[in-house]
Amino acid sequence: MQLLDGKKISQEIRNEIAAEVKKLKNKGKKVPHLAAILVGDDGASQAYVSSKVKSCQEVGFRSSLIKLKKDITQNELLTHINLLNNDDSIDGFIVQLPLPKHINEQKVLLCIAPEKDVDGFHPVNIGRMTLNIPCYIPATPKGILEILKRYKIETEGKHCVVIGRSNIVGLPISILLARKGYPGNCTVTLCHSKTENLKEETLRADIIIAALGKSEFLKANMVKKGAVVIDVGITRVEDETKKSGYRLSGDVDFDDVSKKAGYITPVPGGIGLMTVVSLLQNTLSAAKEEFYKKTLSFNVEEDF
Amino acid sequence: MQLLDGKKISQEIRNEIAAEVKKLKNKGKKVPHLAAILVGDDGASQAYVSSKVKSCQEVGFRSSLIKLKKDITQNELLTHINLLNNDDSIDGFIVQLPLPKHINEQKVLLCIAPEKDVDGFHPVNIGRMTLNIPCYIPATPKGILEILKRYKIETEGKHCVVIGRSNIVGLPISILLARKGYPGNCTVTLCHSKTENLKEETLRADIIIAALGKSEFLKANMVKKGAVVIDVGITRVEDETKKSGYRLSGDVDFDDVSKKAGYITPVPGGIGLMTVVSLLQNTLSAAKEEFYKKTLSFNVEEDF
Repeated sequence: MQLLDGKKISQEIRNEIAAEVKKLKNKGKKVPHLAAILVGDDGASQAYVSSKVKSCQEVGFRSSLIKLKKDITQNELLTHINLLNNDDSIDGFIVQLPLPKHINEQKVLLCIAPEKDVDGFHPVNIGRMTLNIPCYIPATPKGILEILKRYKIETEGKHCVVIGRSNIVGLPISILLARKGYPGNCTVTLCHSKTENLKEETLRADIIIAALGKSEFLKANMVKKGAVVIDVGITRVEDETKKSGYRLSGDVDFDDVSKKAGYITPVPGGIGLMTVVSLLQNTLSAAKEEFYKKTLSFNVEEDF
Repeated sequence: MQLLDGKKISQEIRNEIAAEVKKLKNKGKKVPHLAAILVGDDGASQAYVSSKVKSCQEVGFRSSLIKLKKDITQNELLTHINLLNNDDSIDGFIVQLPLPKHINEQKVLLCIAPEKDVDGFHPVNIGRMTLNIPCYIPATPKGILEILKRYKIETEGKHCVVIGRSNIVGLPISILLARKGYPGNCTVTLCHSKTENLKEETLRADIIIAALGKSEFLKANMVKKGAVVIDVGITRVEDETKKSGYRLSGDVDFDDVSKKAGYITPVPGGIGLMTVVSLLQNTLSAAKEEFYKKTLSFNVEEDF
């Protein structure tokens, strides 16, 4: 069994990004600038946003954190988003999810200008991704592709089983791994809550992406010997022995599955860290105008 | 074995659409107006476009056919598209594919205003479809969903194998059948040219969508007894006994597979006819502004 070391790989990528930022500076260009909107005071959301802001600082990006009260109205939030859409100093921004229940998440995501949508959640970016047109890829799926690539894991013709069909992980990674190119060309089966005989599916998989959000769901008896196991889950589980009162747990029973898997990502130290650097990569792409020219309206598409 | 009768179902839908058009007329509203751009003189493309125009007439739509020479430049074609984008009298339009080799199809599709993109090929519509936001669904996958629905075929928890990952059929139907709702909630496996042991996959399928474009590819020994078999292929095969010199052949060996399948679509008389009525349905949706308000720029998304 080989560990897919998100800590090591994400640090490599951070170093590469930091080197690029230095080059930009040396050329007299401005450094990439990521903004994040955080609504409310959910502990996990605060932790995620803090880690994103800290990562920006480490690679030399500018970052702005906009904290809004949890009882903000939807219209007030949309006003903040429009300010960021029209702020030339900001290359990309994210709205940390989940949002309070009184706010329509889809409406909020649709308001983000696609050219600044570094989370890659807007239909324009999801559509481009599906059609294999260059765009921001959602951070978690992008991080999965990157770790497969850095470990040179063969994907062509492999059977990949994705567990979970969320818009931000399961569904996009199922599309990405079936695309032409590398990493891709997998035969992909997308499983979810309505799947019957899930174990029968996972036992046939060369690559398993566990993204259902159930702590230690995947056991060794569900995994073929030598399979590549990617654990996307990050659940906070109460743990009195920890100072914080909790520990992070994945969707994979690591101790059990690691005896049988060929490759496996740990939690923490796996896909979570890859997700954060993917966001940095997308922000760098935004600053370099890789997918959209800033001076053009995105629906003109002259840049493609 | 029960035949999934595209002729019967598509006629039912035409009657429903014609009734709606009458109602619109009675209310003093204008009738839906579809335009089609045809570049060059490919026989199959001419036949498809003619059948679309004829279908418009049958249900009471207005239609416009814009025939362009095969040596038209890309920029000239884009100019024609922009005219249609800005022509208030036209509710929706299509550009018949394939286009001549010197024209970049993707660039052309990106130029179509998403609110008039009744083929549903633009990234904005594909992205909305992927995220389950109301939009134009590409005509062939839409036709497949419709025929499953009209025959009340159970899909939840069923294992569906899609053969072929084209942007206009295989990929979107794989996404649609895995979505929540009905028809959907399938466990979907997307297979393609890089899939190993395709027969092993198809033998496990409750529903098979054959969309690879190889005449009579799917044989009975690849199909589980009682499976639902949807044949998307339409290939012209030379046939001296026919006046036209050819006959239409599907991706499924009908005589062989029909002995084993529970339900099966014929070619012709199956999904091809459903595709044409799906285009009519999308055009009706455009005229009724179901997904986009015409007075608003589509990226404002106030209509959602």
